[in-house]
Amino acid sequence: MKRLLVLLLVGGCASLAHADEGMWTYNDFPAARVQQAYGFTPSATWLDRARMASVRLAGGCSGSIVSPTGLVMTNHHCAHSCIEQLSTAKRDYVATGFLAKVPADEVRCPEIEINQLQKITDVTARVQQATVGLTGEKFASAQKAAFAEISKACATSDQLRCDVVTLYRGARYDLYQYRRFQDVRLVFAPEFAIAFFGGDPDNFEFPRYDLDVSFLRIYDQGKPAKLDTYFAWSPEGPKEGQLQFVSGHPGSTARLETVAELEFERDHQLPLRQLWLAEYRGMLAEFAARGPEQARIANGRLFGVENSLKVYNGLLGALREPSLLEKKRAEEQSLRKHLAANPKLASVGSPWDEISQAVAKERNFYTRLMYLEGTGRGPMGIDSLLFEQAQLLLRGSVETTKPNGARLEEFAESNLPALLQELGSTAPIYDELEIERLTFSLTKLREALGPDDQTLKSILGKQSPRQLATELVHGSAALKDPKQRLPLWKGGKAAVDAAKIPMLDFARRVDPEARAVRARWENEVKSVTERNHEKIARAQFAVSGTSAYPDATFTLRLSYGAVKGWTRADGVAIKPFTTFDGAFSRATGAEPFKLPDSWLAAKGKLTLATPFDFVTDNDIVGGNSGSPVFDKELRITGLIFDGNIESLGGDFLFDDAHNRAVAVDSAALLEALSKVYGASRVVDEIRTAPAPRG
Amino acid sequence: MKRLLVLLLVGGCASLAHADEGMWTYNDFPAARVQQAYGFTPSATWLDRARMASVRLAGGCSGSIVSPTGLVMTNHHCAHSCIEQLSTAKRDYVATGFLAKVPADEVRCPEIEINQLQKITDVTARVQQATVGLTGEKFASAQKAAFAEISKACATSDQLRCDVVTLYRGARYDLYQYRRFQDVRLVFAPEFAIAFFGGDPDNFEFPRYDLDVSFLRIYDQGKPAKLDTYFAWSPEGPKEGQLQFVSGHPGSTARLETVAELEFERDHQLPLRQLWLAEYRGMLAEFAARGPEQARIANGRLFGVENSLKVYNGLLGALREPSLLEKKRAEEQSLRKHLAANPKLASVGSPWDEISQAVAKERNFYTRLMYLEGTGRGPMGIDSLLFEQAQLLLRGSVETTKPNGARLEEFAESNLPALLQELGSTAPIYDELEIERLTFSLTKLREALGPDDQTLKSILGKQSPRQLATELVHGSAALKDPKQRLPLWKGGKAAVDAAKIPMLDFARRVDPEARAVRARWENEVKSVTERNHEKIARAQFAVSGTSAYPDATFTLRLSYGAVKGWTRADGVAIKPFTTFDGAFSRATGAEPFKLPDSWLAAKGKLTLATPFDFVTDNDIVGGNSGSPVFDKELRITGLIFDGNIESLGGDFLFDDAHNRAVAVDSAALLEALSKVYGASRVVDEIRTAPAPRG
Repeated sequence: MKRLLVLLLVGGCASLAHADEGMWTYNDFPAARVQQAYGFTPSATWLDRARMASVRLAGGCSGSIVSPTGLVMTNHHCAHSCIEQLSTAKRDYVATGFLAKVPADEVRCPEIEINQLQKITDVTARVQQATVGLTGEKFASAQKAAFAEISKACATSDQLRCDVVTLYRGARYDLYQYRRFQDVRLVFAPEFAIAFFGGDPDNFEFPRYDLDVSFLRIYDQGKPAKLDTYFAWSPEGPKEGQLQFVSGHPGSTARLETVAELEFERDHQLPLRQLWLAEYRGMLAEFAARGPEQARIANGRLFGVENSLKVYNGLLGALREPSLLEKKRAEEQSLRKHLAANPKLASVGSPWDEISQAVAKERNFYTRLMYLEGTGRGPMGIDSLLFEQAQLLLRGSVETTKPNGARLEEFAESNLPALLQELGSTAPIYDELEIERLTFSLTKLREALGPDDQTLKSILGKQSPRQLATELVHGSAALKDPKQRLPLWKGGKAAVDAAKIPMLDFARRVDPEARAVRARWENEVKSVTERNHEKIARAQFAVSGTSAYPDATFTLRLSYGAVKGWTRADGVAIKPFTTFDGAFSRATGAEPFKLPDSWLAAKGKLTLATPFDFVTDNDIVGGNSGSPVFDKELRITGLIFDGNIESLGGDFLFDDAHNRAVAVDSAALLEALSKVYGASRVVDEIRTAPAPRG
Repeated sequence: MKRLLVLLLVGGCASLAHADEGMWTYNDFPAARVQQAYGFTPSATWLDRARMASVRLAGGCSGSIVSPTGLVMTNHHCAHSCIEQLSTAKRDYVATGFLAKVPADEVRCPEIEINQLQKITDVTARVQQATVGLTGEKFASAQKAAFAEISKACATSDQLRCDVVTLYRGARYDLYQYRRFQDVRLVFAPEFAIAFFGGDPDNFEFPRYDLDVSFLRIYDQGKPAKLDTYFAWSPEGPKEGQLQFVSGHPGSTARLETVAELEFERDHQLPLRQLWLAEYRGMLAEFAARGPEQARIANGRLFGVENSLKVYNGLLGALREPSLLEKKRAEEQSLRKHLAANPKLASVGSPWDEISQAVAKERNFYTRLMYLEGTGRGPMGIDSLLFEQAQLLLRGSVETTKPNGARLEEFAESNLPALLQELGSTAPIYDELEIERLTFSLTKLREALGPDDQTLKSILGKQSPRQLATELVHGSAALKDPKQRLPLWKGGKAAVDAAKIPMLDFARRVDPEARAVRARWENEVKSVTERNHEKIARAQFAVSGTSAYPDATFTLRLSYGAVKGWTRADGVAIKPFTTFDGAFSRATGAEPFKLPDSWLAAKGKLTLATPFDFVTDNDIVGGNSGSPVFDKELRITGLIFDGNIESLGGDFLFDDAHNRAVAVDSAALLEALSKVYGASRVVDEIRTAPAPRG
């Protein structure tokens, strides 16, 4: 499940690639390396086709276009929230699965936005010009203004989304122009029990037996979108040792963070988040134990939390291996020596020391930042859907009156369509769960700030967390209804100021200090580390040339590799494929090892030797969930849904001997769609699609 | 609340004392240091009196004898489990408080055992002789046999409890002989709301406003025990700067652990426990939110968990300060240099390296150890009261048939009275909470061992954690009843083998691997670190002389210090006293800042300037909860119940400038007992007790 994006709030730097390492940008793809390793040179046309057939789910996943009429394949866990939002107590598609037997049965997902990358433009010169000679707050606001201006000029309609992407941590800025699709409908999803067979215990493990797939369809003006470029399908799946590509959106990596930053992550950032999540998991699991309806409304979030916890455990495990930091320290020393020996690079100064000082400052207010301004950017903050809506309205009413470049970045013109989708979402909000989430958040907030903190006092007053949470949720029903939210947004500041909604008042009490601590972080930390990483990246270019890829930034990347098993630390050799019969052997009849009835019923019809899941050494991380695996003929051979537990250290270092990507085999997808689900409409569409055009 | 013992499973070593540092044994008390610092020399008689008037609550606390008829003062949180066990849904003494208006109202606590230290004997030579030349498993079993033999010879009746105590990590072994009291009755407890005013948010903080007290009475043959030695009472309490003593049972410190051990704690041991606890806290808090009865039965455990979490946060905070390990590293290097330069000490070898290797091994099975054999020894393991009873019966039926020295140490003859008290306890066990605790434990166990682990498979079978937990709890009602447990114990192996109780079968499935991993730890880790710490301690004696105290081992220690405020890291100077009126100002009316009705009603009668809580620089840690603070006239001036947040690093280093012990003022106790609770019987008893005799 993991390859969902887990927000780390880290940036991206350059790293030198070894073996099949690398999450390459499409405009700097090392075709010659692939030729050397696998005897195949991707052409420019081939690359364009792969790029145009790859999509991003704005919520944090990847996907692929698999037919000329807008059919998109992604993971079940990437569409989980949609499937849950379309369900009710009486009609639970998470449990039963979903199949639109006829086109009219395809149902719109309330909050899914799909982006298709149209064009990449280098805007480095324009951005760097805007910030020449500036530092601190001036640097931060000049850069933000430049980003906003460039994006706005590019996003000439709501159909387009434009982002300025910071690559190599500021050594390069590229403008990514996407086509934006907000009418996305659910076509097919299997039962959760097979999509996530083995549950949390098997998550990040292999051998594995998951059918973690869903099919969506992009609509355009009420009809299935006609898209020129799409992947074909390999009915037989991949073979061991065969070259495979993965095109998707790795979320974030930290492969050239400095030692000071990694130590901060190890000792403060990750443990803080991990502890918060562990307690939150205990709360949610116990809430779900109240009854089946509570389980239904809480489980999606619970599984996301468990997934993030495993990620953090893996990251911390990697960082606590002394060898990793020793290696990083040695790399840093080596580059410092190069700088010292090269008078031309004297102007670089001591970027490591400046970053180290910024991180030391960050430590003083990091907890405050996460608790007051973490909402929606990571696991922490005030965890409440009603609060998110209230904050959106409150801040929107102020920010949208400012010039585009002076706004909080999420309110820049180019982001407004996404915000309007969120405000207009018909996804249900459940009071009972909201009260528990908010009680939890307020209790943790009081713990973090202390009961004597002035901000905490102004937020909580004389109430207990539970008293306040109950009052806010029961009093703010208006925010549950998109028909009441949208007019407030459109009515602007006057409408929002006049609204008598307790959660809005609460958001107002949180806002001044939340903004202040965010500004402090942007000015004292982010702007300093960015400028200095830019210096390090330039120095590294000067020393090692440009055979490097930037750290992941949730933008489209292409990786190459092969189907390949590995040997675990305990000496056990793991084969690269599993088969259907393995799933039947592993089933115990009790969750999460309970196969759905549909599978038990279809067992006699299935070819049990069909390959089910497989592993490759492609270099992927969180955000790659739903990425297509494809061969050099641009035929889908698999669907990425996870990495092995060893791959979690991949945020810091890629280890070709142990890191593995985990995918569903294209043969398994066909077999299950046909024989378990009778989804002939989907099967026919992907199998009979004409050969892709570019 | 903190000064309750939080088990760390660490041993004890020697450390050189500075300023008011030191948790001194009574037989090595540095009277001359006190004379030098405060102009007072405690005499041998004075020390004997203080020792005999100090008691230990076997569950993990300290206390003091305050009248000749067995009245014992300790903290509310030390008697919390008794108060909870005596409560029912309709009669909740935790909420309402408890006062025995007449002697006949005093009620027996089901599980409290009190120990009074009678005698300390040096048995170093005998123990060391038994293990000469042995290593590994042979060392471990020879030592265990020697301990058991010495203890058994000393414990000539069930009225006596004898423990061989490893001091300076094996440089010295002392035999502690206690008088054991198992008939302990509840006399007085205030409402939880004032005992723990401020709750978790204020825990480990100061200024503070807690009346964290309870009074118990020791009975002997059905009557109040006549005890010769007790503390007198200071009605006016202590003054700023005045010399104060604290006599109590600090649980464990790690002030001379090696760097390898501290790094292991920082990177593995503490984070593992902390994460488990955080998730457990989330579960318990959400369980308590089901309703008032669930809150009543879960809150005692929840508060204990929250307390431990704050302790772990403090310990990790201290260990993550690079300066701490740098200091330890420097000390280690300096001692190594001394050894290298001193040919007489050549035989010491390289104990640091051997410890480091043992710790590296421990890392490979530490998680397994904690999950399979952690029950009752720390926060982890299989968290279920029914499981504890089942394991006691199962292991007891095997262990008690072995020679005393060959048993698991908790089944040595000298420990049997404590086990019988546990088996005979009338404390209620609640199915609903048991199922949640066991479901949680089994889920975490599966997570730690992995679903493919053979032990896990044999424990869980094909069931889910919740299915198995429900079946075990519902099927094992026999274990809830002391009248059924005691006959099983007395019936020995035949009776236990014949019993058809699912939880017993379950304990049988856990047992082989739990014993195996424990034996591995004892043989490969504990025996190695003990032998090598002994070498380090001897080397340190040779270099620095003996002006050192051993690490805490939950045995009686005496510390000296003075009433003294401190300056926090943020520059705020904290005064050493609070007063009653501060409590009224801090009250918000919402838990945990809600004063009980009794206080609101009594406000007019109270002298609001009465000192409430105060701080001293005495050196204490967890386990000191309930310790008396007293002056040089052996008069009670206060009651330890906490330390400030800075003091949590005290497990590793004592910092006189910032570490503070937190106590209730003896004047506050008198004022509240008289005017809020009308507890004239208690007040008269402690005020009119004749001067103590030795």
